[in-house]
Amino acid sequence: MNGAESLLQSLIDAGVEVCFANPGTSEMQLVAAIDKIPGMRPILGLFEGVVTGAADGYGRMADKPAATLLHLGPGFANGMANLHNAGRAFTPIVNIIGDHATYHLPLDAPLTSDVPGYAALTSDWVKICASAESMAADGVAAVAAAMAGRQANLIVPADHAWTEGGEVAAPLAVAPRPGIPQERIAAAADLLRSGEPGCLFLGGMALRERGLKAASRIAAATGTRLISEVFPARLQRGVGRPKIERLPYFGEMAADMLGTFTHMVMVGAKAPVSFFAYPDKPGTLWPPNCNLLQLADPHQDQIAALEALAEHLQAPAPPAIDEPALPDIPTGPLTAETVGAVIANLLPAQAIVSDEANTAGAFSFGYFDGAAPHDWLTLTGGAIGQGLPAALGAAIACPDRKVINLQADGSAMYTNQALWTMARENLDVCVVLYNNSSYAILNLELLRVGVEQPGARAKSMLELDNPRIEWTQIAAGMGVSASRATTTEEFQAQFEAAMAARGPRLIEVVL
Amino acid sequence: MNGAESLLQSLIDAGVEVCFANPGTSEMQLVAAIDKIPGMRPILGLFEGVVTGAADGYGRMADKPAATLLHLGPGFANGMANLHNAGRAFTPIVNIIGDHATYHLPLDAPLTSDVPGYAALTSDWVKICASAESMAADGVAAVAAAMAGRQANLIVPADHAWTEGGEVAAPLAVAPRPGIPQERIAAAADLLRSGEPGCLFLGGMALRERGLKAASRIAAATGTRLISEVFPARLQRGVGRPKIERLPYFGEMAADMLGTFTHMVMVGAKAPVSFFAYPDKPGTLWPPNCNLLQLADPHQDQIAALEALAEHLQAPAPPAIDEPALPDIPTGPLTAETVGAVIANLLPAQAIVSDEANTAGAFSFGYFDGAAPHDWLTLTGGAIGQGLPAALGAAIACPDRKVINLQADGSAMYTNQALWTMARENLDVCVVLYNNSSYAILNLELLRVGVEQPGARAKSMLELDNPRIEWTQIAAGMGVSASRATTTEEFQAQFEAAMAARGPRLIEVVL
Repeated sequence: MNGAESLLQSLIDAGVEVCFANPGTSEMQLVAAIDKIPGMRPILGLFEGVVTGAADGYGRMADKPAATLLHLGPGFANGMANLHNAGRAFTPIVNIIGDHATYHLPLDAPLTSDVPGYAALTSDWVKICASAESMAADGVAAVAAAMAGRQANLIVPADHAWTEGGEVAAPLAVAPRPGIPQERIAAAADLLRSGEPGCLFLGGMALRERGLKAASRIAAATGTRLISEVFPARLQRGVGRPKIERLPYFGEMAADMLGTFTHMVMVGAKAPVSFFAYPDKPGTLWPPNCNLLQLADPHQDQIAALEALAEHLQAPAPPAIDEPALPDIPTGPLTAETVGAVIANLLPAQAIVSDEANTAGAFSFGYFDGAAPHDWLTLTGGAIGQGLPAALGAAIACPDRKVINLQADGSAMYTNQALWTMARENLDVCVVLYNNSSYAILNLELLRVGVEQPGARAKSMLELDNPRIEWTQIAAGMGVSASRATTTEEFQAQFEAAMAARGPRLIEVVL
Repeated sequence: MNGAESLLQSLIDAGVEVCFANPGTSEMQLVAAIDKIPGMRPILGLFEGVVTGAADGYGRMADKPAATLLHLGPGFANGMANLHNAGRAFTPIVNIIGDHATYHLPLDAPLTSDVPGYAALTSDWVKICASAESMAADGVAAVAAAMAGRQANLIVPADHAWTEGGEVAAPLAVAPRPGIPQERIAAAADLLRSGEPGCLFLGGMALRERGLKAASRIAAATGTRLISEVFPARLQRGVGRPKIERLPYFGEMAADMLGTFTHMVMVGAKAPVSFFAYPDKPGTLWPPNCNLLQLADPHQDQIAALEALAEHLQAPAPPAIDEPALPDIPTGPLTAETVGAVIANLLPAQAIVSDEANTAGAFSFGYFDGAAPHDWLTLTGGAIGQGLPAALGAAIACPDRKVINLQADGSAMYTNQALWTMARENLDVCVVLYNNSSYAILNLELLRVGVEQPGARAKSMLELDNPRIEWTQIAAGMGVSASRATTTEEFQAQFEAAMAARGPRLIEVVL
């Protein structure tokens, strides 16, 4: 077999089942291998940002990597924004980046690009396959790196892919995540038992149900608050699960929340900083003299750390959970809040919510504490255009679960091509498209830098209302059936119908 | 004034009139400056690939830079593919990339990224502004670099942008392009006068009308052939202009064309190599023992080199040009060829053609030798998604000229957001969208790597027919009026109507 075939067979043997792909000529040997060897499901994205965002959503839900297939530097570049987000989420991904044949590189053909240079910007795991013989071993090493919560960027020169002599490599054992020394657990216990105000600040795997149950035991034993990072990769929420507060996005509000704390114990998240700097505002959000203790970082065993801490505290079993009340289903004018209230009421059990609603979603987030159990995925890295592709990938990973994508219009435009793949694969995704015809967050940010009365030129860079984007037409153009809601009652009827059916659907919410 | 204001005023003073923008929070000071200071026209793109591709099209037609406004590493990454293309076209562009405040960078906020590392991948001109005071001087240096045919990547830390103390800097004189030593001109003349088969191989500025006229004098004096690089940045064509052959895309065909040559004299292009490598096929397209002489590279004065060579040869005035016949306007079934024949017949004088038709356009290219005078822009770097944005930028640069975008469907999906900006700015662009529901070139490439009977998994990565993309709906969703043609007569009627009206229009050609 040739190098490409040995790589593909070894990835399949190592448990990689899905390849999100936008191949080009330099990847044709890998396309041919996928065609020839059964076991890898190829899923075409019509732009690389869809491919990488889908791999992020898949990896968050499957807890194992999908492969991607990307085309030299420019194809990789198109996927980098969502790889940035995936990196901030510590999502397992194996990127396979085709490059020119090694002997072709010095000729500087038009697509020649510094592929290793591109790849090094999204991960510290970059490997250039050196031969057909070693390609499969590089592939299983990439899977092992991904399983440790890293992106693996594997560069495949075309000549090694087409050369005979590939040898299938056996999967590598997945190394357990590093544990936490007992003295650090004791130190965390001391801080939390102090009686002073503070919190357990959680991110990463700590926000899975098991981590939250251990955290809730700790909170019951110590009285500490539980606070989630602003943008969790995957938060398991809903009735029957411990409730957690969420740090606000705006630095001033976040600093207010943490302002009296004498200590913070971080698990799976680092101490929070402001998303951006502003003149005369602090970048770090904890108060001076706050004791910071990193109990477990995102690469360590965060759930084990929380369970060990609960044991160390001799915390009892998880306390009974007060069931938060759902909001009443509202009627009348359609707002982001009424949309949120409807969705929270009608959310199917085990739904997956891909949340890139940005400003439109912020105020209804709390409603979902009382919704059916679900997983909540957010924009971890701030590079917009992630919500649609992540929903796509989550639906591939979990075909029996309903996926709801809460999606802001400005961000949706970035990777609107994801709708086509949802239609092609008949994925069970309902996109709720908040159309406020604006980069609303940027209007707030302009105000925050002191422009209180923006003129025409500033508005022309922040408003999307001329022309108004007709999302139902865009969705239909890509094969996704779509409708528009202008009242809460209309939205409720459309959302109920979407929950009762399978397959992709877009509901445009006119705000 | 603050740093951002001094930078903006200095760019305006240096002749930069247009800023293609997709700003974020870290660029708000620049947005505020554009709002406050008259003279810079901001044009919003709803994805950075639109922004940079538009700047490429603008720069090719205006022969001076537009500015872009991009948001940290991920925003820049989204624009990198079209910057790759612009780099291969030697297009003048000034990219302004906002970054975090300098003191915020060590906090590793979610969008923190190695912006200089990203920027260095598309250009060797990268500058990080060091203070508010020096920002304007950096800006005028960026314009000077751009005028020399380079991309200038100027990184603006937010704190320097908002700090007072900015000082407007005067424009720098544009340095003349380096000239060509007389002995090299004599050597080129000796090669071309040899009587052996060979060619003048032209790219870059050599393909402007003045360069082609000098080249045609040289051809008349020596009998040499004139051949254009495969993907010219801007080729001036049509009646009254010297005709030039074009090197074929596929390496075998190109090598056949050049196979008997004993010499090639390159002006504004380098000696041609195969786009990709293939097993057992050469990467260099000239025959062994062919004498290669680079008369002028893309940074030198290519037109002056050709004119000096013509003088050295004592070549007479440009020969009379045989007017190539236009094809008859065809009727009946719609094919890429009949579409091309209709357009060539109806092309308005001084039209600009942005050609990303890929396989669909290849066979009608020759028809346009007999069309009205026009400029032809192509995908210089092979990173698809360039045709729509380049058309947009060309229309901004030349508001009195009709722009025709010959556009393949697969490539159009990459940066479909460009349609929205065409509608917003009411640009006089007619998009001819070739919908063959396929990455047709990749089907050819798969055949070329030996897969003669692709199976379902391979086809699923190359075919776009499930679902079929409804381009008229996508266009309408973004505010561009659209129609579909299924016969040549329908296409002719729709294209005639588009040529008779102003404003954006999309015609889907169903192949």
